[in-house]
Amino acid sequence: MTLTDPDRLFPATQRQRDMARALYASVADLPILSPHGHCDPSWFAENERFPNPAELFVVPDHYVLRMLVSQGVSLADLGVPRIDGGAIEGDPRKIWRRFADGFALFRGTPSAMWLDHSFEHVFEISQALCPQTADAIYDQIEAKLATNSFRPRALFERFGIELLATTEGALDDLRWHQAIKDSGWTGRVTTTYRPDAVVDPEFEGFVENVAALGQLTGEDTMTWSGYLGAHRARRAFFKSYGATASDHGHPSATTANLSAHEASALFDRVISGEFTAQQAEMFRGQMLTEMAKMSLDDGLTMQIHAGSRRNHSADVFARFGRDKGFDIPGRTDYVEALKPLLDAVGMEPDLTVILFTLDETVYGRELAPLAGAYPALKLGPPWWFFDSYEGIKRFREATTETCGFYNTAGFNDDTRAFCSIPARHDVSRRSDSAYLSTLVTTGRLREAEAFEVAHDLAYGLAKTAYNL
Amino acid sequence: MTLTDPDRLFPATQRQRDMARALYASVADLPILSPHGHCDPSWFAENERFPNPAELFVVPDHYVLRMLVSQGVSLADLGVPRIDGGAIEGDPRKIWRRFADGFALFRGTPSAMWLDHSFEHVFEISQALCPQTADAIYDQIEAKLATNSFRPRALFERFGIELLATTEGALDDLRWHQAIKDSGWTGRVTTTYRPDAVVDPEFEGFVENVAALGQLTGEDTMTWSGYLGAHRARRAFFKSYGATASDHGHPSATTANLSAHEASALFDRVISGEFTAQQAEMFRGQMLTEMAKMSLDDGLTMQIHAGSRRNHSADVFARFGRDKGFDIPGRTDYVEALKPLLDAVGMEPDLTVILFTLDETVYGRELAPLAGAYPALKLGPPWWFFDSYEGIKRFREATTETCGFYNTAGFNDDTRAFCSIPARHDVSRRSDSAYLSTLVTTGRLREAEAFEVAHDLAYGLAKTAYNL
Amino acid sequence: MTLTDPDRLFPATQRQRDMARALYASVADLPILSPHGHCDPSWFAENERFPNPAELFVVPDHYVLRMLVSQGVSLADLGVPRIDGGAIEGDPRKIWRRFADGFALFRGTPSAMWLDHSFEHVFEISQALCPQTADAIYDQIEAKLATNSFRPRALFERFGIELLATTEGALDDLRWHQAIKDSGWTGRVTTTYRPDAVVDPEFEGFVENVAALGQLTGEDTMTWSGYLGAHRARRAFFKSYGATASDHGHPSATTANLSAHEASALFDRVISGEFTAQQAEMFRGQMLTEMAKMSLDDGLTMQIHAGSRRNHSADVFARFGRDKGFDIPGRTDYVEALKPLLDAVGMEPDLTVILFTLDETVYGRELAPLAGAYPALKLGPPWWFFDSYEGIKRFREATTETCGFYNTAGFNDDTRAFCSIPARHDVSRRSDSAYLSTLVTTGRLREAEAFEVAHDLAYGLAKTAYNL
Repeated sequence: MTLTDPDRLFPATQRQRDMARALYASVADLPILSPHGHCDPSWFAENERFPNPAELFVVPDHYVLRMLVSQGVSLADLGVPRIDGGAIEGDPRKIWRRFADGFALFRGTPSAMWLDHSFEHVFEISQALCPQTADAIYDQIEAKLATNSFRPRALFERFGIELLATTEGALDDLRWHQAIKDSGWTGRVTTTYRPDAVVDPEFEGFVENVAALGQLTGEDTMTWSGYLGAHRARRAFFKSYGATASDHGHPSATTANLSAHEASALFDRVISGEFTAQQAEMFRGQMLTEMAKMSLDDGLTMQIHAGSRRNHSADVFARFGRDKGFDIPGRTDYVEALKPLLDAVGMEPDLTVILFTLDETVYGRELAPLAGAYPALKLGPPWWFFDSYEGIKRFREATTETCGFYNTAGFNDDTRAFCSIPARHDVSRRSDSAYLSTLVTTGRLREAEAFEVAHDLAYGLAKTAYNL
Repeated sequence: MTLTDPDRLFPATQRQRDMARALYASVADLPILSPHGHCDPSWFAENERFPNPAELFVVPDHYVLRMLVSQGVSLADLGVPRIDGGAIEGDPRKIWRRFADGFALFRGTPSAMWLDHSFEHVFEISQALCPQTADAIYDQIEAKLATNSFRPRALFERFGIELLATTEGALDDLRWHQAIKDSGWTGRVTTTYRPDAVVDPEFEGFVENVAALGQLTGEDTMTWSGYLGAHRARRAFFKSYGATASDHGHPSATTANLSAHEASALFDRVISGEFTAQQAEMFRGQMLTEMAKMSLDDGLTMQIHAGSRRNHSADVFARFGRDKGFDIPGRTDYVEALKPLLDAVGMEPDLTVILFTLDETVYGRELAPLAGAYPALKLGPPWWFFDSYEGIKRFREATTETCGFYNTAGFNDDTRAFCSIPARHDVSRRSDSAYLSTLVTTGRLREAEAFEVAHDLAYGLAKTAYNL
Repeated sequence: MTLTDPDRLFPATQRQRDMARALYASVADLPILSPHGHCDPSWFAENERFPNPAELFVVPDHYVLRMLVSQGVSLADLGVPRIDGGAIEGDPRKIWRRFADGFALFRGTPSAMWLDHSFEHVFEISQALCPQTADAIYDQIEAKLATNSFRPRALFERFGIELLATTEGALDDLRWHQAIKDSGWTGRVTTTYRPDAVVDPEFEGFVENVAALGQLTGEDTMTWSGYLGAHRARRAFFKSYGATASDHGHPSATTANLSAHEASALFDRVISGEFTAQQAEMFRGQMLTEMAKMSLDDGLTMQIHAGSRRNHSADVFARFGRDKGFDIPGRTDYVEALKPLLDAVGMEPDLTVILFTLDETVYGRELAPLAGAYPALKLGPPWWFFDSYEGIKRFREATTETCGFYNTAGFNDDTRAFCSIPARHDVSRRSDSAYLSTLVTTGRLREAEAFEVAHDLAYGLAKTAYNL
């Protein structure tokens, strides 16, 4: 054999689509691993039917809401509850019609692809959604939802989900996970430890949250050592419900590695409620390092989601609250920000810290060089606005040459839109197949290697990175 | 029908060029809407012939000047007037020969494509410009320019321009627009309200400019309320000459939303001439919000062009002045910067604020997420250095998945190079057709949708965004 | 002829690979100009055989080390010497096996392509490296290395190297370059003046280094004028060994242009050892401008490599020292940073300053606009993590439309991995051929022009930019 393709790096397309099809065919039906997401565990505990098409596809989906709002539809007219309890649209069919009226807005977006995929492959719809078809499609979805084979557990099984991790706050009692256990249903639904509300001094009710953490664990969480002990206890509790990971949503990637004395003093400061923004930032940063150290002990994979400027519109936040599509990414630095954590634990081969970003400019400049050097680091998949064909393409093109495939962590769907899970994994598998086919047909990867990599990207890497 | 293409996201090229051709054919001959540009209205008022090929293609084109200068040609040798009135090249043919000598420098640039298009399609030239053909091409252009069918109005009509907006300062008497009206010529040439010189405390002669604004309007512009009233009066005056938009060229996207009391105090400060750089920045930011509020009243579309570091070379600025190709882009933030304006008026569905940037890193991270949420925001087309095939491709790829097509504002040529207008719109229409053909052939957009979108990108979106 | 292609800007692929092949064929066998690199001149002075496969391909290659380390292999197990002299792997075959065990990690990286190319084209290996083939390939390389035709000079000639520039510190006695001269061997190996250790007040031993500079030159380097005179003397000394360039590796692109009085005072400060980080930064910046002014006198091309955060891992630095794969890029500004230098000498047509970056976000926003205006500036090729197919593609796509090809400086291999030099130039020539073929087949460049440009990119531009 020759090691190098005589046509390497040259454009190729005769073979490219065929190669992409073959790669995709090899991974299309692999089970779905969903190690990071926001589905509601009560769905699987109670296995009630989903209420109606609007509640399934429109009201809870911030991608859908934001696009309709951007063209002048009000959140109230889409059925989103107002904080003041004021009147909102209560007729799901009217909400659905407004959605259908605006469906052309989604042209070229991943939302359109996810929705079309769900309509077609989950609900067997064969007409495109538009004002003329809105009612018929509504009726068709509604009819299906009324059947047992469209209840959550049936869909879970039909979707081929091997594992679905939900995300719960540190204070959650995990009652729905207990109920799933108790039910005898064999679907694997695990939890993830998300302690933002007891780690971020600027979170609403932080001090009360930390007090509640003490009550749950019997630790004196008004002291630094008791506070850390309480985290250890809750992590163990979450592990007992299958958690293999923690998740940390921070405004920046700032980390700190203070001495025990300094950290304790900083804790005293933030728990007093009298602190500066800088001290809050420092405390969040210190807690990332503390969490990484706990991961060294208990083996939880650590996920850091940094860079979202939450609740950008004061008006929308005041009227409708969080998570209504007005979180906007901002510039995020990693090189300086992560240095304290990395100097502490970055060279540990048994630790896994998965980094996510909303700032694509750091893929090639910061994240791939870091992940391509530190044993503890892996790169999470393109996140949120970048969970899309072009987003995935830019991620692969900007990171692979520097850190390869094996410092990445497979795909996350990161969704609360349950019916979109197969669609999202499908987009990921197709996009990666397309990327790999380009590498093969331009002589940058051998065909046999590409099939191995395709399998790893669709399944193996997530399994390893999340200890599944 | 199926909603999803079995080959979606895979590379496709058999159909791709055919699809691009078909999409382009459907928009190639649409009328040109040019809602933002810098043509001289006196051309259409006086309808005199253009002086010579060098004055048409070289001397006023900062793209051309900068490239020749970058390889050692002096601005004086290209006929650019010196501030000190010193000697410069006065022979247009010699200037033209220097241009021809350097024409190979433009290989791969949009300037080459615009120039070739103008040469071929406006002047019927069939030889490539090079030192050997310089004189013959000069003569051919000169001969055409001497004919009536190459006068400004004749070209305007031949180019299929439905509307051309020029840009005038707030103090302009719009005499040329009056003259066009008076002439009876039916070409639609409108103006745009550009108040930088009376809004930016750091602009040369700011205080005198504001005083002149008072004289023009009869307002006491030395007071905050009189100053605002004067803006309202001038906006109405510009509207009476067809203006549908204002334009704001600011070094950053900073906005502010001070109380009336604070704003008035800040105005007193800047009009006194004694202010800090930070106060100047704050005042510019406050004025963006004031202008947005006036737009809510008078319906003018608001354009914000941010991020150019003007007059980077002290030497060139001292010898030749502004706009000589030495404006360099810089990093520009939008997420924090626009928040005050957006908190004030961002949720208004009847307001249109069009954002432009010279910092491509914000497309996906900041601008598309903002425009995909706030009803008042639209994204302007790629601007200046990015008004090109690759620039347009990056813009579409980075924004469409997040904010779709309908939060963008169509194409602007933004030029004072009149003969390049058809070429620039053609590049835009072709580039968008190529992009759309990629979406169709990779299963991301249906063919019928693509034809609708192509029409909207070439015509409909500009018409809506600028209220044309 | 027509000046514009009727299908311009549309996707094209039928002709694209053929065109790429033809362009590549026209440049594939051009001599190699390597004007910037880090080969050891003693190789060519002594012409000893390379010690073993591990010492040739693994131990000195920070790309290889970092990837293996990122997956948990320790530097000590790869034979990298410890600062404390502690035990490390001493068996090259065991190191090689660890490399083979991890070779799949390099899938999709330029390292894989360079290594495969070297294996196949230099060592005639036809099996892919993997655990099963590790020993056989080791033996095959070892057997070749033992022959005279694999000694450094023989390889130099076989690789078709017309010129190879090494890089030496300002205090180097250039003995190996003298030995090459004395040997009568006709291979052209030159040096490059790299004064970081005597220019950066934060460099280890800065004051001692400056004192040594005085001893070498007879100048009183404890005074500003003597210090500058010593630089002039050393530059002349380096020129006498063929140097045509200086090289400056700075953490940022900051420049300064102080008055002689201020500069002298700043020098007194930094040479006293009592200075702030800001003063160190200012001094480095002042020295870039001083070096540029010296280049105006002596004609050395000036290279500025900015933006690496060196030795990011405190742990790795403490145990293994510099250059072990833990240098991470960071954000780098050029527009404000270079203004002092550019205001001083940027308009000089006889000066060449080549800019390199590790921050790709500045290609289109900052570097191409600057290089497309200032006569003194050229852009260096994509550097370090971006010396790759996708890296080169992004560079060309982001810069060509603004500054064209002729404000770029050709290719650098920048390597100490001698056997990879042909592979790296081959990747560059292929990548540029692919890019040019895309321009031709989408109507953005004429075919005849593309052949000229291909030659310039592979050979002509480096020859001019480095005065070879």
